[in-house]
Amino acid sequence: MKETEKFKLGESLPLAQVLDGLPYNSDGLIPAVSQQFDTGEVLMMAWMNRVALEETLQRNRVCYWSRSRQKLWRKGESSGQIQILKEMSFDCDGDTILLKVDQTGPACHTGRRSCFYNVVRGDRVEVASEALIDPEQLYGK
Amino acid sequence: MKETEKFKLGESLPLAQVLDGLPYNSDGLIPAVSQQFDTGEVLMMAWMNRVALEETLQRNRVCYWSRSRQKLWRKGESSGQIQILKEMSFDCDGDTILLKVDQTGPACHTGRRSCFYNVVRGDRVEVASEALIDPEQLYGK
Repeated sequence: MKETEKFKLGESLPLAQVLDGLPYNSDGLIPAVSQQFDTGEVLMMAWMNRVALEETLQRNRVCYWSRSRQKLWRKGESSGQIQILKEMSFDCDGDTILLKVDQTGPACHTGRRSCFYNVVRGDRVEVASEALIDPEQLYGK
Repeated sequence: MKETEKFKLGESLPLAQVLDGLPYNSDGLIPAVSQQFDTGEVLMMAWMNRVALEETLQRNRVCYWSRSRQKLWRKGESSGQIQILKEMSFDCDGDTILLKVDQTGPACHTGRRSCFYNVVRGDRVEVASEALIDPEQLYGK
């Protein structure tokens, strides 16, 4: 993405050229942060590869790469809690993706709205939110 | 952080225990996303090690680990554009940090407020913001 550093407002590059040139790590992945588009709440961080990126842009539904399962992870495919893509952006060096999304229900596998519920308060780390839905119900166990 | 998954609202762990148990990568690092605390704007992503985490919490000024320079990076030490820490949280598996901060001026080395200025629009990636300050002025070149 270095070539856009000195671009003026509204100057652009072809999407395909940008996707080709991203600094994927040795596993072909880039971290993606998702944020609820209207409230600004940061929901989660996960990973995308080139295929996940393209599918997400084509369908406007967020698809990650699951490192634990080593396969495409269509967010919500088992929980029903999908992310509709509102806007995708890349940072100055192209090594992080920001996804503005409309998240249905909880983003977190624990049933909480956001994964960032462990908050530092003095010399303790405190759980700052409760599950919206019981995770056992979320995954139909 | 797995042990807090089933914690109720307000239950907590000692901070030192959490910092000891974070899943640092093979370089001892964890990604940290920073967000302007009042507007919700996502500013940048960088990396922290254990020392950077502790310094940030002690001083309430954000300190990262610079992978390119291989040293502590006290955000703003050369540009003057500091980040005051408002809140730090960890995600469900502890492998990402969210920093709510009060960012002075631009967070990005290009002089833009946020690093996420390369926005996908159709089949183009368009620069969606301008520098607040000329980067040559920012770094006194």
